[in-house]
Amino acid sequence: MAVGCVVVAAGRGERLGAGPKAFVSLEGRTLLGWACAAAHAAGITNIVVVVPAQPWDAAAPEILDVPADVVRVAGGATRQLSVAAGLAVLGDDVDIVLVHDAARALTPPSVFVAVVAAVRAGHQAVVPGVAVPDTLRLLPPDRGVVHRDRLVAVQTPQGFDRDTIDRAHAQASPGVPVTDDAGLAELAGATVHVVAGHEEGFKVTRPLDLLLARAVVHERAAAALSAETTGAGS
Amino acid sequence: MAVGCVVVAAGRGERLGAGPKAFVSLEGRTLLGWACAAAHAAGITNIVVVVPAQPWDAAAPEILDVPADVVRVAGGATRQLSVAAGLAVLGDDVDIVLVHDAARALTPPSVFVAVVAAVRAGHQAVVPGVAVPDTLRLLPPDRGVVHRDRLVAVQTPQGFDRDTIDRAHAQASPGVPVTDDAGLAELAGATVHVVAGHEEGFKVTRPLDLLLARAVVHERAAAALSAETTGAGS
Repeated sequence: MAVGCVVVAAGRGERLGAGPKAFVSLEGRTLLGWACAAAHAAGITNIVVVVPAQPWDAAAPEILDVPADVVRVAGGATRQLSVAAGLAVLGDDVDIVLVHDAARALTPPSVFVAVVAAVRAGHQAVVPGVAVPDTLRLLPPDRGVVHRDRLVAVQTPQGFDRDTIDRAHAQASPGVPVTDDAGLAELAGATVHVVAGHEEGFKVTRPLDLLLARAVVHERAAAALSAETTGAGS
Repeated sequence: MAVGCVVVAAGRGERLGAGPKAFVSLEGRTLLGWACAAAHAAGITNIVVVVPAQPWDAAAPEILDVPADVVRVAGGATRQLSVAAGLAVLGDDVDIVLVHDAARALTPPSVFVAVVAAVRAGHQAVVPGVAVPDTLRLLPPDRGVVHRDRLVAVQTPQGFDRDTIDRAHAQASPGVPVTDDAGLAELAGATVHVVAGHEEGFKVTRPLDLLLARAVVHERAAAALSAETTGAGS
């Protein structure tokens, strides 16, 4: 069973400054570059990146900071259309599809592996989920607290068997806003399975998220150095 | 109208290592110390801290890392009982009450000021709220996506007129779990008003939160230094 991964990097996202969000630099590598590297480290080599249209979709892999064998396509007007553009160029041999947000740049490879394993085990639609840290309250005119113990915060990569994701996008109505692909698959009749996400799978959208992302990269580098030093001494 | 602030630091919280969470060190100051300093900087001098029972409630202010004029009381078995213990020792002159979690150590003074202003303006119960970044999904046996556009993630300090918070706690049933004081006030008939929270008002519970908190403290120090340098040069 071949695994393909669509990495969505088509957002114009302006909260982090000039240029598309996925090309923001995080310690010398773009967010998109980090996301592709994590998929690669999980053993996934069949990657399609969906980038903003001209000039990005024509840019060289080095400019986009992605591996040379990555397929590049131009995104659409909405996230949903961008994912569909990525799905359209996946090879016929792909039967497990991951959809990942480039903004979740530091999602560890282990999460990709866990999502693929759950799809292989027979789940049609799989999402990584983490606990909701804050009390949630309905905005006026509604009122009241939403019990967060019954909820998970959904991350990516989300995983699907090929038929499920293709059917979900074929049946999708542009008029009905759906925030993620699992929601779309659910509308098409699939049952969504939740696996454990990871705290480092947060979405980098605000400057504060970029600050945290930098700290995580430094922490990983320090841990790697420490492991190396320990290894050398043994 | 006198403002009093109950800072809850009674949690045993073990995810950050040994000892109560509020006494974890963040760049040389406890989380509780940071929280009290922010309240002070907002002009609030009437502060009650609720700490775990023996030996903490008998500890000197220097040990707890709080201003010398702060009142210290021992917390109860639940967060709700701990808040009640703090309310019980507020002076009779206090007619606006803030309830704050010490774990939200870096909430800026401006949020305290905004919450107090909204209570002064006539709102019985006020919470700071921020947007929910992730898609939320109901856990099995439920299913489906919860539309986050209709929700806010609730922070602290939460503000109340004295009558409202006293009545809320007097009517509270220990058997009904309520995650925050605004929820309690709502059960007692109050309407909850939401003001803008702040991204730096996140709760420090996981090691990753502590990593972010450290980065924020460094960023603030760099910004202060830069402002000073610019000032000296002008």
